[in-house]
Amino acid sequence: MKELENLYDRIIQRVNINLRELEFEVNPYAQNAIPLGQMIKFYAFFGISPHHPLSFQFKHSNLAGSYFLGHCNVINSLLYKSDIRGDELKKKGDLFQYQCFEIPVNRDEEINITDSLLIKTLVHNFSHDPETLEEFFIKDTISMNYANIHGSPSDGCFLGPFATADLTTIRDCVIRRFAYVQAGEVSHLDIAAGTVWVRNPGEFNFIYQHPVDELNDYIFISPTAPPQGLFIDFVEDRKEAFQRVFDVVNIEHSTSVPTSASLDRYAVVKPTTTIGENVLVSQRAYLQNSYLGKGANAQENCYIINSQLEGFNVTAHGAKIIEADLGTNVFVGFNSFLRGCPDGRLTIGKDSIIMPHTIIDVKESLTIPPGQLVWGMIKDDEDLANHSIPIEKFSGITSGISMGNMYFEGNGASFVTAFKDRIHHILEANGAFFNGSEKKGHAQKNQYISFNTLQPYPEGHKKGLYPTIVIKP
Amino acid sequence: MKELENLYDRIIQRVNINLRELEFEVNPYAQNAIPLGQMIKFYAFFGISPHHPLSFQFKHSNLAGSYFLGHCNVINSLLYKSDIRGDELKKKGDLFQYQCFEIPVNRDEEINITDSLLIKTLVHNFSHDPETLEEFFIKDTISMNYANIHGSPSDGCFLGPFATADLTTIRDCVIRRFAYVQAGEVSHLDIAAGTVWVRNPGEFNFIYQHPVDELNDYIFISPTAPPQGLFIDFVEDRKEAFQRVFDVVNIEHSTSVPTSASLDRYAVVKPTTTIGENVLVSQRAYLQNSYLGKGANAQENCYIINSQLEGFNVTAHGAKIIEADLGTNVFVGFNSFLRGCPDGRLTIGKDSIIMPHTIIDVKESLTIPPGQLVWGMIKDDEDLANHSIPIEKFSGITSGISMGNMYFEGNGASFVTAFKDRIHHILEANGAFFNGSEKKGHAQKNQYISFNTLQPYPEGHKKGLYPTIVIKP
Repeated sequence: MKELENLYDRIIQRVNINLRELEFEVNPYAQNAIPLGQMIKFYAFFGISPHHPLSFQFKHSNLAGSYFLGHCNVINSLLYKSDIRGDELKKKGDLFQYQCFEIPVNRDEEINITDSLLIKTLVHNFSHDPETLEEFFIKDTISMNYANIHGSPSDGCFLGPFATADLTTIRDCVIRRFAYVQAGEVSHLDIAAGTVWVRNPGEFNFIYQHPVDELNDYIFISPTAPPQGLFIDFVEDRKEAFQRVFDVVNIEHSTSVPTSASLDRYAVVKPTTTIGENVLVSQRAYLQNSYLGKGANAQENCYIINSQLEGFNVTAHGAKIIEADLGTNVFVGFNSFLRGCPDGRLTIGKDSIIMPHTIIDVKESLTIPPGQLVWGMIKDDEDLANHSIPIEKFSGITSGISMGNMYFEGNGASFVTAFKDRIHHILEANGAFFNGSEKKGHAQKNQYISFNTLQPYPEGHKKGLYPTIVIKP
Repeated sequence: MKELENLYDRIIQRVNINLRELEFEVNPYAQNAIPLGQMIKFYAFFGISPHHPLSFQFKHSNLAGSYFLGHCNVINSLLYKSDIRGDELKKKGDLFQYQCFEIPVNRDEEINITDSLLIKTLVHNFSHDPETLEEFFIKDTISMNYANIHGSPSDGCFLGPFATADLTTIRDCVIRRFAYVQAGEVSHLDIAAGTVWVRNPGEFNFIYQHPVDELNDYIFISPTAPPQGLFIDFVEDRKEAFQRVFDVVNIEHSTSVPTSASLDRYAVVKPTTTIGENVLVSQRAYLQNSYLGKGANAQENCYIINSQLEGFNVTAHGAKIIEADLGTNVFVGFNSFLRGCPDGRLTIGKDSIIMPHTIIDVKESLTIPPGQLVWGMIKDDEDLANHSIPIEKFSGITSGISMGNMYFEGNGASFVTAFKDRIHHILEANGAFFNGSEKKGHAQKNQYISFNTLQPYPEGHKKGLYPTIVIKP
């Protein structure tokens, strides 16, 4: 495994150099994150379909347990159980609208991952950076368990566990655990754990800060141990169910799936689950005894357990919904953790927006009225009052508002419109509006994917490294 | 599947053009051989190991259920459940001895399969043609179920079911069902069904002709149906056992395997089977209630059932051994079918050579003394007397001999030496003589292989075609 070890050291060094100004040492975090021995155990897999671009290049890398779709290149990198979904990349000839510019896309966009270590990370969407339209790069970057790199080119960054970079070009940044950043372009920042930051320069700026003491119960990381906490335990407890899904070549889910919906063969579905029309269930999603109404979706690393989703529900990457009833059009952002309990269910009224990285964890029943904007850490009615606001009211904000740890400045209507447009786009991309012939999205296109598996050298000095692999149409 | 159909038609046309002088039309045979719908059902797989060269290029082809190892290129071809084993190819710098020539090998040899349709075919060994040392080509060729293309470059040929081309460059030839050719170089020949032909020009010439009426019970082919007969039934009856082996990602055989032996994860092993030291069991081999002594091997498509192999037994590709006891150093050639029955076992004395494509099918016990050369179709003691001769006696032949349908001319000693050298080489290559540190062969090297799977486009006009795939170290 000499070469694998060298590669690992090389990546750590490169990221450290990038982060030297922030005086952040990635070594202890990265070193505890994943034993190299694990990296030879799992096969990588990639999808082939007539509905997706096809271009993979893997070189001098380990891809253990990772999934690839679309147009991805991975060089000198270690990808552990990560999802690299290149199915929303821009195509040659597209016009990219940025402020007053309409920029033509010169060639098919590609995800280029170089000199990086990604652990259980989701990479999706496309580069929103007008400076780098054809390349969604991830360079000299380390991301920890369940980080999301969503439409966010990254150079020289460290993302802690459950951190999310969303539609943001990040350079030389540390985004600590469970922090969410959607800010266009940032560099040389150290984003504190549990920060939720949504900014559109000149329009609005939303910042929330999770109370760190409480957050530590959910996700904690120290330089001496791998990530710990309820989030990790929750996922580990359900790990075995995925084992079976990955151990067989072909799998027949027992749940019936409408012809307009798709249930990924690498998802776990436990009884009694109902999948409605136009529903998208991605790989590594976990459904148990739940109802997904028309146009709902469950993305990578989502867990939906004992819950009802009425329809057109976006459950973004990494979100968890347990013992809850969600009305139509409820949006649940990245890595949110929404948990009722059998005797005290969580009810979320229609058209509500649960901000990314929201934690709602209740022991007694809690009802969120329709049309609310919800954020933060909520454990009872009082918390809810302090961490939510009717969307309509929020739209009326013209200068700013502050509630507890949440600060907002700018135009509320602009913020709400941006969110609503985004939700509409996601539903559209996922195929929620498919009418039988038009408006196809992932739910329809993903029905026709065949999966291929790859494994590394099993022995010798290249042990753990994958050979050079090039796949073209 | 339009492109797949076009490819199929194109291959048939090219082979027909090559075989026009023989007035042989491949269409009816090829058309019944394999429904195109089957070709999208099975994954292809290839091995990666530190002990084998690694270079694959697959382009515009279907590879359904086929296996690849070593250095193989496949272009514009359909390979159905075939084994392309490039683990005995020549390496750059090797010296190839041919008569008085010592020819340096310029670059690593590669297997190049173009414009060909191979069905359940084994491709192995290396090009023995001094004119094409660096390329083991298979071009404009169709081979049917369980054909062997062994060290035999082929251009414009048709091989019927269970036909074998061995160490022979074949051009514009038809090798009909169950015919075996080992003749150096042949062209524009139509080899009759059940012919066994071993020739070394200037040294010896061995020809045997199976009685076609009897052969038809074992393998029969007509232009209106796929191959039929006992051979096909025998294999089909045991097909399900392989299903399980191919359906799981990782498999643990319950049989214990010595550290010096290797049991391929794509083999079937049923109780109670004992695997001795230095034993090699290849993918698609089937072992049931048998004993494989030290240095024995079971190659691709071998079936060894209720049998004892004392040790250093070569069971060549496609050979079947049922209810039999084989002494040490017994060699069983390609596609031979040796079947005793529970009340009448078949016993083969040590050091005997069972020629390729021999059928021994007995209802009462039959004993072959040690040191015999055996060929043909044997159903009782009388047949045995007419189809065997002590090797020592055969070595004494200086001009020729004829026995029933067998004609031999030339030097018997030269024939025997050639066979014995070959058997020694096979045992050596398979690792039968491994002493714990030296003389490693396939049995030792194959312990460290990781397998990758590939699938074709599942839908669209490319349905059934595999994408372009390039794999390098």
